[in-house]
Amino acid sequence: MDTRLGEYVDDFTRRDWQTLDPDSVEDPVRLALVGAGWFTRDWALPGIERSAFTEATVVTDVDADAVDAVASEHDLTGVTPEAFRAGDVADEYDAVYVATPNATHLEYVTAAAEQGKAVLCEKPMEATAERSERLVERCEDAGVPLMVGYRMQSDPVARRLKDLVDAGFIGDPVHVHATMSQTMLGELTGDPDQWRLDPDLSGGCALMDIGIYPLNTTRFVLDADPVAVSGHTRTEHEAFEGVDEHADFRLEFPDGVAATCSVSQNAAHASRLEITGTEGRAILDPAFYEREERELAVERGGVRMDVEVDPAHQLEEEFAYFGHHLLTDTPFHPDGRHALVDSRALEAIYESAETGETVPLRR
Amino acid sequence: MDTRLGEYVDDFTRRDWQTLDPDSVEDPVRLALVGAGWFTRDWALPGIERSAFTEATVVTDVDADAVDAVASEHDLTGVTPEAFRAGDVADEYDAVYVATPNATHLEYVTAAAEQGKAVLCEKPMEATAERSERLVERCEDAGVPLMVGYRMQSDPVARRLKDLVDAGFIGDPVHVHATMSQTMLGELTGDPDQWRLDPDLSGGCALMDIGIYPLNTTRFVLDADPVAVSGHTRTEHEAFEGVDEHADFRLEFPDGVAATCSVSQNAAHASRLEITGTEGRAILDPAFYEREERELAVERGGVRMDVEVDPAHQLEEEFAYFGHHLLTDTPFHPDGRHALVDSRALEAIYESAETGETVPLRR
Repeated sequence: MDTRLGEYVDDFTRRDWQTLDPDSVEDPVRLALVGAGWFTRDWALPGIERSAFTEATVVTDVDADAVDAVASEHDLTGVTPEAFRAGDVADEYDAVYVATPNATHLEYVTAAAEQGKAVLCEKPMEATAERSERLVERCEDAGVPLMVGYRMQSDPVARRLKDLVDAGFIGDPVHVHATMSQTMLGELTGDPDQWRLDPDLSGGCALMDIGIYPLNTTRFVLDADPVAVSGHTRTEHEAFEGVDEHADFRLEFPDGVAATCSVSQNAAHASRLEITGTEGRAILDPAFYEREERELAVERGGVRMDVEVDPAHQLEEEFAYFGHHLLTDTPFHPDGRHALVDSRALEAIYESAETGETVPLRR
Repeated sequence: MDTRLGEYVDDFTRRDWQTLDPDSVEDPVRLALVGAGWFTRDWALPGIERSAFTEATVVTDVDADAVDAVASEHDLTGVTPEAFRAGDVADEYDAVYVATPNATHLEYVTAAAEQGKAVLCEKPMEATAERSERLVERCEDAGVPLMVGYRMQSDPVARRLKDLVDAGFIGDPVHVHATMSQTMLGELTGDPDQWRLDPDLSGGCALMDIGIYPLNTTRFVLDADPVAVSGHTRTEHEAFEGVDEHADFRLEFPDGVAATCSVSQNAAHASRLEITGTEGRAILDPAFYEREERELAVERGGVRMDVEVDPAHQLEEEFAYFGHHLLTDTPFHPDGRHALVDSRALEAIYESAETGETVPLRR
C-alpha cells in the first residue's frame, strides 16, 4: 500500500519546529501586551491564551479605558505607558508584545530591552528603516531576543508551501504574483486605526500595512531576499491624502526571479500568492488574512491538488512559536535582522515610487 | 418571479455583434490561408469550417508538403507563395488569413492588399512596430479591411467580462494581474515553431508570442490603452539564446490603473487574468489558451459566482466575427490601428528591459 499521501496529509499541520511537549510546560512565558487595539483584543490575546507556551499577564495602552476593559476581562495587570516604561510591574512578565502604531514601536521595545525582556514586535518593525535599525540595535545591545510578528511564517499551510518549493516541487521558481487588498475604511473599525492614515505614525499606508505581507511571505517561501525593487503608489480617495491608498511593486530576487505585488487599502478584498516554476505551480488563495481559511493548490505535470485545511489560529501558532523558542532558548527565524530587510525594501519601494527608478538593495 | 439571472445566463454566450442570420448566408467569405502550420491546421481551419460566414478555398505555405496535405484533406487549391503573391488564383478567395512567422506578415498582407482582398492577420501584427505601421498603411492605402487575430475579443466569456467591467460591477478598476506561461519546447511541436526562437523572424519570444495576450486582453476589458510601460526580460535556458524566455511587464493605464503581467515560454502552464476594483473582482482562469475552457469568477459584497461555460470554439467565433463583419460591411474592433498600440507597447517594453526606464507611449 502506498502510504506517502497518507503520511503527508497526517503531517500537514504538524509543528515542525516544536521539540517541547506542550503538556510539559508548567511555567509558560508571561507576556506584557503593549497596545490594546482591536488586533490585540480579537487576535493576539486569544492566540496567547490558546498557546500552551504563553500567558498574558500585563497590558498597557495610551487608551486607559481600553486597558481597564482588557485587564478586567482577562484578569491582567493594567498599567499606564509611563508605568510600563518605568518597569513598575516588570517582575510580572518575561516578554513584551508590541502592537502599537508603527512609529511608537521603538520607544516600547527600547523600554522592554532595558528591562531585559524578550520582545515580539508587530510588523512593520517601525515607521522608517532608520528607526528599525535602532530598534534592532537596542535589542542586540541589551542582549534580548527579538522576534517580529510575521504570522505567515508560523502558519502550517505557508510552511508546507515553503517545504514544497524547497523540495523542488515546482522546479525553479520563475515568477511570483501576489495581490492583497481590503476596504480599510469599511472593513476595519473607526478611530483606533486612523493612525494608519497618519504618515508620521505609520510610515505609509497600503505598502507598510499590507505590502509587507506579500513581500515577507515571498521572501520566506523562496528563502531569498530581493536584490532590487521598484514600485508605484497612488492615492485617489481624499481619506488617504498624504499616504498611499494603492501600491504595486516588483521585487527582483537573485537569478532574476521577479515577484510582482499589488496591494490596496481601498479595493475589494483579495488575498493571493501564486508561484510559477519551471515544472509546476503553487497557489495560496486565500493567502494572507488572519481571518481566512488558507487554501493551497499545487499543480505539476497535469495533476492539480487542492488542499483545504482546518484553519489554524494564526496567532496561537505565532505565540506558540515565540514562547516555545524562548523556553527552549532557540533562535527565531523572523528576527530583527530578517525584518530589517523588509524595512529597507519598503523604504526603497517608496523611493522608487518618487523617482521612477529601480532601487538596488544592499546585501 | 425574478428572471434577471435566467435572462443573464441565457444571454451569456449570445453573439452580441451578430445581426446577420447565419442560416441566411449563401455565399460565405472565401478565405485563402497563408501559412499551413499547426495552428492553421488544428485551430484556424476547423474554425473557418464551423463558421457559417466563412469557407476556406486556397492554401499556401513555404512548405510544399504541408500545402499538399492541407489542400487534399480539405479540398482546397494549394499554391506556392510565389503564385499566391502573383495573384494566380485571386479569383478563388475574397479574403486572406495570414498565419506565418511574424516578420513575414508584411509581404503577404501587402500582396493581399494589392489584390484588393480583406485581411485577417495573426497577432503580433509584425516583428517590429515600424513594419506593423507599414502593414497597416498598405491596407489603408489599398482600401482593404484589416482585422488582427485577437481571438479573446470575440470569445463570449471575455466579452461578458468586458461587459461586467463596463457596467461597473467591480467599481473602478484598481489593479490587474495576469500570468500566462507554457513550456514551449515541450508542449508545442518541433520544427515548425522554431521560428519563434529566431528574433529576426519573431521579433522576440515570450513577450511577442505570449505577452500580447494579457496586454491586448487587458486593453479590451478595460477599454483603455496604456500610457506608459516598463518591463524585464530574462533568458536562462540555452535554447532561448538571443530571445526572451521569460518576461514581466507593467502597463500603466489612465488614472494610474496598473496591470502587471508575467509571461514565460519555459514555465509551468498558467493562464489567468485578475481584475480588482474598488467594489469587486473579476477573475478569468483559465484565461488565454484556445484549448482551455475559460472560467469566470466574479466577486462583490461577499458574493462570489463561478461561471463555467460550455467552451466556444474560439477560432469559430473569430472567423465568424471576421466573415460576418465583411458580409455586413461593418468595422472590426481589433483593426490595424488598434493592433498598432500593442506593437508599440511591446517594442517599448523591450526598450524598457534594455534601459531600465519606464517608457511613455505616444497617444
